[in-house]
Amino acid sequence: MRISSLSERCNVSVATIKFYIREGLVQPGVRRSATQADYGDEHVRRIRLIRSLVEIGDLPLGTIREVIDAIDDESMPTHDVIGVVHSALTIGKTDADETDLHEPIGEVTAYLKRLGWKVKPTSPAIAELARALSTLRQLGWDVSTDSFEPYVRAADDVAAWELDQLPATRPRSDLVEAAVVGTVVFETILVAWRRLAEQHHSAQRT
Amino acid sequence: MRISSLSERCNVSVATIKFYIREGLVQPGVRRSATQADYGDEHVRRIRLIRSLVEIGDLPLGTIREVIDAIDDESMPTHDVIGVVHSALTIGKTDADETDLHEPIGEVTAYLKRLGWKVKPTSPAIAELARALSTLRQLGWDVSTDSFEPYVRAADDVAAWELDQLPATRPRSDLVEAAVVGTVVFETILVAWRRLAEQHHSAQRT
Repeated sequence: MRISSLSERCNVSVATIKFYIREGLVQPGVRRSATQADYGDEHVRRIRLIRSLVEIGDLPLGTIREVIDAIDDESMPTHDVIGVVHSALTIGKTDADETDLHEPIGEVTAYLKRLGWKVKPTSPAIAELARALSTLRQLGWDVSTDSFEPYVRAADDVAAWELDQLPATRPRSDLVEAAVVGTVVFETILVAWRRLAEQHHSAQRT
Repeated sequence: MRISSLSERCNVSVATIKFYIREGLVQPGVRRSATQADYGDEHVRRIRLIRSLVEIGDLPLGTIREVIDAIDDESMPTHDVIGVVHSALTIGKTDADETDLHEPIGEVTAYLKRLGWKVKPTSPAIAELARALSTLRQLGWDVSTDSFEPYVRAADDVAAWELDQLPATRPRSDLVEAAVVGTVVFETILVAWRRLAEQHHSAQRT
């Protein structure tokens, strides 16, 4: 298809597409003549992915480049690409007291080991869980990693469902797009439902 | 107990406690002499709640006052108090295109009706779900409210578990503290686990 059709299909201006090509985020089209190039479905997919990163992830261009590089590095397993996405999407926290988290991080890591889950040991999610444990304890809550159980079960169900949405034969970039959309949009959905469920259950109990 | 013991038990300075009392957020102690007053467990609970709102919720004093007023208004059902907390804790979004959400809000409301859930029709969570539907569609995802099913199930389990942690006889302020802590800390926990579960499942499939 021509760049004008690509622009229409992706709902992105021709100028923006040209900018992405100049920046190396999107492959140039196949030249047909001095003034025309041909674009395919892989261009649609790539532009959609960039738009997800911009519109939902609100990521700066430098970070988008990191994610795109990870996708384009065919030697990197999808699993690691998702790790890169998660790290890119972490909302900046002031990690001033990260040293205090040494012990709870150990607890979370040991718990993950008991679960038999294969996750990146440097996942920001691990530090977030450690910080949550530490905050709850400071507030006088008696919590251990056992308190994670219902959350693990819920997250396990949701993640399995999300990955089932993608046929195994879909290209890597689709998996990564799903990881981005999942990390941002589906997290919002999960959190919004938790709030509604809390209202619903508290209504039933009063 | 004396104000010094209260300060120690809550890990908050005497000056801060006096400030809360002057601001009407905490009841004064029972006078014992010209220079001494007596404080009880209700003071400990109230100060802990304020600290949760400040430290985890990062709420300004005006919003904390709204939440405290809702708790102190004995005529307001706990269920409505939780609604006030949820509204207070919503992260400010630019609602410029809120009008575009009219249709998806209708879909979400109809879905909630089918579920038979009793929630505040003005809950910010409803608009968030509508915005998520709309964003996914703009990105070319074919989603309907049926896609919410696994999230509803997960949220339902987690909310029921969270409320089970509180004996029904606990005072209202404890329920509200749990709602605040739940809304902020447990949401972080849920989201962090979703990310780890996604890594785990994608590792299993590659």
